[in-house]
Amino acid sequence: MTSLLLTGIGSLVTNDPAFGGQLGEVRDAALVIEGSKVAWVGSRRDAPEADGALDLGGRAVIPGFVDSHSHLVFAGDRAEEFAARMTGTPYSAGGIRTTVAATRQATDSQLTANVARLVTEMRRQGTTTVEIKSGYGLTVADEARALEIAGHFTDETTYLGAHVVPSEFADDPAGYVSLVTGAMLEAVSPHAKWVDVFVERGAFDEDQARAILQAGLARGLQARVHANQLGEGPGVQLACSIGAAAADHCTYLTDADIDALASTGVVAGLLPAVEFSTRSPYPNARRLLDAGVTVALATDCNPGSGYSSSMPFCIALAVREMHMTPAEALWSATAGGAASLRRTDIGHLTPGAQADLAVLDAPSYLHLAYRPAVPLVSQTFIGGRPV
Amino acid sequence: MTSLLLTGIGSLVTNDPAFGGQLGEVRDAALVIEGSKVAWVGSRRDAPEADGALDLGGRAVIPGFVDSHSHLVFAGDRAEEFAARMTGTPYSAGGIRTTVAATRQATDSQLTANVARLVTEMRRQGTTTVEIKSGYGLTVADEARALEIAGHFTDETTYLGAHVVPSEFADDPAGYVSLVTGAMLEAVSPHAKWVDVFVERGAFDEDQARAILQAGLARGLQARVHANQLGEGPGVQLACSIGAAAADHCTYLTDADIDALASTGVVAGLLPAVEFSTRSPYPNARRLLDAGVTVALATDCNPGSGYSSSMPFCIALAVREMHMTPAEALWSATAGGAASLRRTDIGHLTPGAQADLAVLDAPSYLHLAYRPAVPLVSQTFIGGRPV
Ligand SMILES: [Zn+2]
Ligand SMILES: [Zn+2]
Repeated sequence: MTSLLLTGIGSLVTNDPAFGGQLGEVRDAALVIEGSKVAWVGSRRDAPEADGALDLGGRAVIPGFVDSHSHLVFAGDRAEEFAARMTGTPYSAGGIRTTVAATRQATDSQLTANVARLVTEMRRQGTTTVEIKSGYGLTVADEARALEIAGHFTDETTYLGAHVVPSEFADDPAGYVSLVTGAMLEAVSPHAKWVDVFVERGAFDEDQARAILQAGLARGLQARVHANQLGEGPGVQLACSIGAAAADHCTYLTDADIDALASTGVVAGLLPAVEFSTRSPYPNARRLLDAGVTVALATDCNPGSGYSSSMPFCIALAVREMHMTPAEALWSATAGGAASLRRTDIGHLTPGAQADLAVLDAPSYLHLAYRPAVPLVSQTFIGGRPV
Repeated sequence: MTSLLLTGIGSLVTNDPAFGGQLGEVRDAALVIEGSKVAWVGSRRDAPEADGALDLGGRAVIPGFVDSHSHLVFAGDRAEEFAARMTGTPYSAGGIRTTVAATRQATDSQLTANVARLVTEMRRQGTTTVEIKSGYGLTVADEARALEIAGHFTDETTYLGAHVVPSEFADDPAGYVSLVTGAMLEAVSPHAKWVDVFVERGAFDEDQARAILQAGLARGLQARVHANQLGEGPGVQLACSIGAAAADHCTYLTDADIDALASTGVVAGLLPAVEFSTRSPYPNARRLLDAGVTVALATDCNPGSGYSSSMPFCIALAVREMHMTPAEALWSATAGGAASLRRTDIGHLTPGAQADLAVLDAPSYLHLAYRPAVPLVSQTFIGGRPV
């Protein structure tokens, strides 16, 4: 196993509180990679020898971003719908259904190429783990192939047959729930780690969502939930009562919702790029953090409500719009994402962890918020290798 | 002179209304470069032959961004001050004076390297012309060297000795104005196209600003003004009465200010990345546009109030926060910037114009706003050559 010494690190974020602060930041640091893992971190002057060395010239190193919420398996785009929404122009948008129709018509290789393009784009921006959901197929075959394709790019595959009731089931939502909990679940379960439901007025109600999540759990999947995006509702409480890993969106929360998140340890996933692209109010991150809730930041990258793949942008929005500190925002985009995916091997740079990291063309992680939208990631390593 | 045919352009923005709409967009287009100029634009099927050809595979092509307002000649950064401002933490910030002190101490080669780094970063994001101001030297020698350094990177150099009264003149602002209009002006004028003043409470008042601008005009410089950023004030009216090219910021305007801009044709420069990074209210772009004012979008890239170099980010903010249409925003970031710099050879892609353009990894310019902070620029051409 070869080892590589990264040295000349101006600022290293380990997310190990043993080094002090929430981020365990080490100045003038070094890090040793052995094989695919982190073998050593610390001050440059204490660094051990290694087979090779790379001097980063004072650049900052952070754990790779863990983007715990995305929808990348789709065809087409909805740029015209976006423009109409932003300008208040009437537009006969089909919304999600436009993407469902395009996705069903696309070939496997078209869908694969689209995911590959977006995953590459994410990696160039420092993302080293991305969760990818199905949800634009909504037939047994189309959901199964979406998850099979997603599985080529990540272990964090999420079955979201319950994204929306497809138009062919408009008069029979119960029939669609039966499909989602029956034949569709059976077909997708070899390819999915997670089961997810869009719990919202106009999507799936509490009883439907509970049935879908319980069916997934019974099949060995783990649960995560789209909750409380467009208004208060039962999503967060359901996530907490059923033992989900995460309740994502959390834009409209009651005090009881916050209490439930805090007491159960369910991670609140905040997706501020969606609020940016839909001109919606941002979630109240401070209320969650002050109550002790674990917060993850993710892109929700999707062609409808927010098509940014940029975790640095989510950090900049978290600081500007949600009053998170730069440290809280970076933690949530790395360790918080890992918690949301129940992963202990990523989201931090400590001995034994995956050597998943991003090198910044900047002296400190602060620049992620200080320099919004500037492509600061100069190199991304996954499993110890530059990608 | 060799010619190059760019073909397979999914969408070409020419900014030539002869092709229809504000942007003169041509679908399935081609463009011929001869030497450093655009020789031909139109539909792909009508394209003439050329010495070489490059198929862009359906990508969009837009005029290169014209960033008409930046402050790139400085040393150090103020990331800690930014973090303190965003989190409401007390911080004994020196503000601009911190940067002035660091800039004075820096060597020429350090300053040059910093400008080079930022200009490279801008080009990678599609900017093909950038205006660069002095204003962190504030001595005769330091302002002159700032403009000499800026001149290595752009023709659009702006003398901003009147950025702030330096601390050594705190008790003698009139003495500083004399220096700015006297020996300092004399030293910088070989290196500057423009003269600029920060007209604001706490910076320079109307009489001081008029004296400085008139002295610059008398020396053959052209005028532009930092106006009405922090509150209503005389800046815009002064810009209009003195024949300035642009009044930049324009965050707080009276009806009379808007009338003056509309009737004189002075360009209003909007700098929304500053409002993003200072958590300030955004200018009312619609009020300006609806009154017929020419609007330019620019970054104001600087280490204090907004350190983004990203024109695509300015476009995304213009659409999200200032309710500009995606077409208005792109026009303002290209043709609007050119108008602000009184340039007719850039900001559009029509025969005879500079072949300054950006290729987007996207089918349409709409993606600049639709996909915020995603690095979509795959190639930038300046004067017909990839950079
Ligand atoms: Zn989602
Ligand atoms: Zn400025």
